[in-house]
Amino acid sequence: MSETKLKQKLVEIASLAKKASYRLGQIDTATKNKVLIEMSDALLKNKKEILSANNKDIALAKKKKASIAFIDRLTLNDKRISEMSDSLLQVSGLADPVGEVIKSWSRPNGLKISKVRVPIGAILIIYEARPNVTADCIGLCLKSSNCVILKGGSDSLNSNKAIFDILNNITIKNGLPKGCISLIDVTDRKAVDLILKMDELIDLVIPRGGEGLIKEVKNKSTIPVIKHYKGICHVYVDSEADLNMAHNISFNAKVQRPGVCNAMETLLVHKDVAIRFLPQMIKHLQDVGCEIRGCDLTRKIAKNFKDIKKANEKDWSTEYLDLILSINVVNSIEGAIEHINQYGSHHSDSIVTDNKAHAEKFLKEVDSACVFVNVSTRFTDGHQFGMGAEIGISTDKIHARGPMALEELTTYKYIVEGTGQIRE
Amino acid sequence: MSETKLKQKLVEIASLAKKASYRLGQIDTATKNKVLIEMSDALLKNKKEILSANNKDIALAKKKKASIAFIDRLTLNDKRISEMSDSLLQVSGLADPVGEVIKSWSRPNGLKISKVRVPIGAILIIYEARPNVTADCIGLCLKSSNCVILKGGSDSLNSNKAIFDILNNITIKNGLPKGCISLIDVTDRKAVDLILKMDELIDLVIPRGGEGLIKEVKNKSTIPVIKHYKGICHVYVDSEADLNMAHNISFNAKVQRPGVCNAMETLLVHKDVAIRFLPQMIKHLQDVGCEIRGCDLTRKIAKNFKDIKKANEKDWSTEYLDLILSINVVNSIEGAIEHINQYGSHHSDSIVTDNKAHAEKFLKEVDSACVFVNVSTRFTDGHQFGMGAEIGISTDKIHARGPMALEELTTYKYIVEGTGQIRE
Repeated sequence: MSETKLKQKLVEIASLAKKASYRLGQIDTATKNKVLIEMSDALLKNKKEILSANNKDIALAKKKKASIAFIDRLTLNDKRISEMSDSLLQVSGLADPVGEVIKSWSRPNGLKISKVRVPIGAILIIYEARPNVTADCIGLCLKSSNCVILKGGSDSLNSNKAIFDILNNITIKNGLPKGCISLIDVTDRKAVDLILKMDELIDLVIPRGGEGLIKEVKNKSTIPVIKHYKGICHVYVDSEADLNMAHNISFNAKVQRPGVCNAMETLLVHKDVAIRFLPQMIKHLQDVGCEIRGCDLTRKIAKNFKDIKKANEKDWSTEYLDLILSINVVNSIEGAIEHINQYGSHHSDSIVTDNKAHAEKFLKEVDSACVFVNVSTRFTDGHQFGMGAEIGISTDKIHARGPMALEELTTYKYIVEGTGQIRE
Repeated sequence: MSETKLKQKLVEIASLAKKASYRLGQIDTATKNKVLIEMSDALLKNKKEILSANNKDIALAKKKKASIAFIDRLTLNDKRISEMSDSLLQVSGLADPVGEVIKSWSRPNGLKISKVRVPIGAILIIYEARPNVTADCIGLCLKSSNCVILKGGSDSLNSNKAIFDILNNITIKNGLPKGCISLIDVTDRKAVDLILKMDELIDLVIPRGGEGLIKEVKNKSTIPVIKHYKGICHVYVDSEADLNMAHNISFNAKVQRPGVCNAMETLLVHKDVAIRFLPQMIKHLQDVGCEIRGCDLTRKIAKNFKDIKKANEKDWSTEYLDLILSINVVNSIEGAIEHINQYGSHHSDSIVTDNKAHAEKFLKEVDSACVFVNVSTRFTDGHQFGMGAEIGISTDKIHARGPMALEELTTYKYIVEGTGQIRE
């Protein structure tokens, strides 16, 4: 396709989404829920079609010698299709954020002002080869009355198209505005460059994927972006920590699921408890195959342990997403906070302490989306927070921070009612 | 200055602001208020210095043959310095948004979650040659515990520097963190290009100025931007409007201050009332020198009036900022809503009607930051809304929409307190 034709096609998709967004905002909750339930059913009923499309993608990926991890993320099966279906059903049961009066007040001149929650409009989701994202994002955007434009990884195009077509048929059957969901089915890399400049038609872009994808989107986009960067999360074991609790929390934060963004990457330990705390901790972690990289003091304390590499400057700012942990012994709580603010990714950080003043200081001064006291960092999650869903975890400070669900997919408008007021 | 040196200088400024932001967030309200009051005093005490610096800028602008309007915006005098001083005093009296618990809840596993308002961090303000913005932005950012980096128009550099130095001395005297306010005092255009890529150090950029400046910032920035685009605002006179009220509101929205963003640019009139409404309206507007550009029907109705040009496609999307009004007669409320969503700038739009259902439809379906019933659009304003201040009016939907004051200069963090909870 020539660049002109490609651009024309993308403008058409985005214009249709923008236009549909004015109508989708007016669809009532019951209709939206009905559509979501039918979508959930349709995924199960058309399982064969989805799996057969997915098989094509898998065969192509194998031919390209994609990694096992890549193919795993790409692969759908009965269980994963059921999960997608369940997720849509769950979203149908969540409260509709649209129309909520956030606050309202009157002015001395009689104006009645209300701040009311409304959909954002047209949202572009750019993601990698994870076909489940297709259904998840359609569900969350539809429930919050946002039109969604999906641009998934080329390697999952057959799967995405199959899922999209099934769900799109339900929107058509129910008379939802044309273009309220759309899929960009071209694999040309230029498509992303072009659509990221369409800020007059698209209100928000959410990239979902690795650091490379997010940086690319951030650098190219003139549309506002909400980023979900890496998670370099810390647990800080304070001088006044319950060391048993600190052990359990640290172990959980590192080991329970090391490949996710809210897992701990660096353990910070106050010097006064390091000798009592670290040996047992390191032993337990090494027993389950966790590689340890330590500061000088850590290595001195653990000198009887084998294989503790020196953690260097780069380690402090690395998201391992693996069974690897860097450990730094700090002189003070201030040292811990400084380390986190300097090297962390402002995602999730926890202090283990029985000292209330220390806890308060940590909560106030650590500049992260989620700050914990005596809790594993693994709880940063839309479901764990009680939001009922999650479209991502924002490491941005603008619009949404931390776990994002339905409410975070809305904006507001001011409604002002009067009796003829004019400005003097 | 070489580009390398310039970049180094800018990185220094931004790094210092970022570092200071961790400390500024911890400064208590009383201290911030004391600083603001002292700043307010200092502007008055050092009036001579400011005026003498301003005179230099004016002389240079005159030499460059700048327009009268440009020189007017650039010019400071006793009254304007008093206004800047008053504004700082006012901000000192506003409620501090930092630390507010937005909401809090508990989870079945005992986790206590609070969503707490915190400063955004380091904010870059890029503005044109209006020296009063220097003091205004310092006041609002300081009160909301944000570090501010100011990049004003080169033509007001002497004035900006004078104001900045006076206010910066107060921050130093009160021991606020170094770099909590800073001014980029280079006139090299490259400075803006370079600093707009420093998204790791700067959390937000707010451009304040004309469309050209805002587009430039939007296109170049990898830092999140909150935009204040143009205001193409409408008044729609419904078939069931009180025509007296409609007359007063329309006149006010157009004439009271035509050069501002919340003034009306296009008047929409339902066909059923056009013949009764338009002749008097047009006469009144023409009497005060307002140029009228009308649709075919408007021109037919007003055929006895002189000088009614035909409004073309371009008129509907033009922000005149002047005594010019385009008028369109529409067939229905749906036509009015469609016109506004298509041609407007999603800023402020008003319906005049006695019909409740029409009002509700308009409020729901017009996709603008502020929607009014029986009120002049001129009320879109932080002060008029009771926010006590205004740093701008966002036409974006992300983060803040409509008038922005202190609350809109904050973000939030989640504080999660537990008793050793780990993820199963």
